[in-house]
Amino acid sequence: MKVETILTPALFYQVENVEDKIVVVIDILRATSTITTILHNGATAVIPVKEETEAETYKANGFLVGGERGGETIPGFHFGNSPFHYMPERVAGKEVVLTTTNGTKCIEMAKMAHQVVIGSFLNLEALIKHLKNSQRDVVLFCAGWKDRVNLEDSLFAGAVATVYPLRDCDDATLMARDAFELAKDNIYETLQNSNHFKRLASKGVTKDIAYCCEVNVLKIVPVLKEGKLVVA
Amino acid sequence: MKVETILTPALFYQVENVEDKIVVVIDILRATSTITTILHNGATAVIPVKEETEAETYKANGFLVGGERGGETIPGFHFGNSPFHYMPERVAGKEVVLTTTNGTKCIEMAKMAHQVVIGSFLNLEALIKHLKNSQRDVVLFCAGWKDRVNLEDSLFAGAVATVYPLRDCDDATLMARDAFELAKDNIYETLQNSNHFKRLASKGVTKDIAYCCEVNVLKIVPVLKEGKLVVA
Repeated sequence: MKVETILTPALFYQVENVEDKIVVVIDILRATSTITTILHNGATAVIPVKEETEAETYKANGFLVGGERGGETIPGFHFGNSPFHYMPERVAGKEVVLTTTNGTKCIEMAKMAHQVVIGSFLNLEALIKHLKNSQRDVVLFCAGWKDRVNLEDSLFAGAVATVYPLRDCDDATLMARDAFELAKDNIYETLQNSNHFKRLASKGVTKDIAYCCEVNVLKIVPVLKEGKLVVA
Repeated sequence: MKVETILTPALFYQVENVEDKIVVVIDILRATSTITTILHNGATAVIPVKEETEAETYKANGFLVGGERGGETIPGFHFGNSPFHYMPERVAGKEVVLTTTNGTKCIEMAKMAHQVVIGSFLNLEALIKHLKNSQRDVVLFCAGWKDRVNLEDSLFAGAVATVYPLRDCDDATLMARDAFELAKDNIYETLQNSNHFKRLASKGVTKDIAYCCEVNVLKIVPVLKEGKLVVA
């Protein structure tokens, strides 16, 4: 099984035969960590939508809606993009609509894949098990930040790749893997110089970052089925 | 001074205010290693041209021309892309025209920068000294392979970045730096799983790769002046 890493959505066009591959969407801070948490907390589905206006329509029809633009909660929405907004008592048994700057855009871009799954440090081990069982080539699709490479998504791609033979990894994957190898015992500390860390820290949400760096605390894998993310 | 890394030409459009910055063009295997070698071997200039037909015109006018497409020497040219083709007895005192798949394209793309310089492991220390003296923001521009990320150029970007404070590096630079940190004592070995290594090894040019991984053996910095690369 081959593994390739797409470091930013601007390079997603380079994936060939995507319909035969599993795409792992990675937006560590915070969309994919939050999606995994929402489903872990008992929501029946997360409905990713690209446009704020789509989410507004869902809201007008009685859905819970969450989302951010540029890291800020969208005014009038029930939740922002913090995993701590989605407590079990709010989301259990419900469908939640989510729109974020980078993450939900990538889910949309990847939808022609054989399967789209959601990755985060929170569910790393469960994700790896899922990928290994699938026996498919894997695309590690980093959401980045506004089409730029970011460190946290790249490091996570490297973390997933460590279980594959080196010869099956493309160059971006090899680089991400080396970077993760150096960072693995200090993910939170390594991220402190990253662009996103500085941006979120300036908004006072380092608690979110610390949570999103926790490894293997959730046992589920969100997969996209008929436009909704559900537990695999 | 800020440092940003552009991991593939497909992302070069993201550089802002390039006219105020120094751009380091990086194509370790083999264009920038070869350019540095040609100038070290006494050529008065390397004239980078994007199109094969331009090089043909120079050739018809008596110039020495070198170049490759897809890793193969262009038929009828005096030299290919191997640094070993350009021995002092062939190039000393002459101008050499060069066209390559990725490297010369990047020089062309970067030409509106404040300055374009050429980087390779061969002249790492001289390059770093030049960058430090310039007191300018730096763009580490990896040529990659046909718009894809490659490992050797990324590792070299990481090597250059190690002399800057972490806080001045963008996320791509931080990742490249971590990857270099892990690889620095075994650059050649680290590259053995890379796409480009496999491609060149299949053509039997591992000798070129070993040479291009040598660090600090040449003391010059090629800079672009009026369309020609000359010793700074």
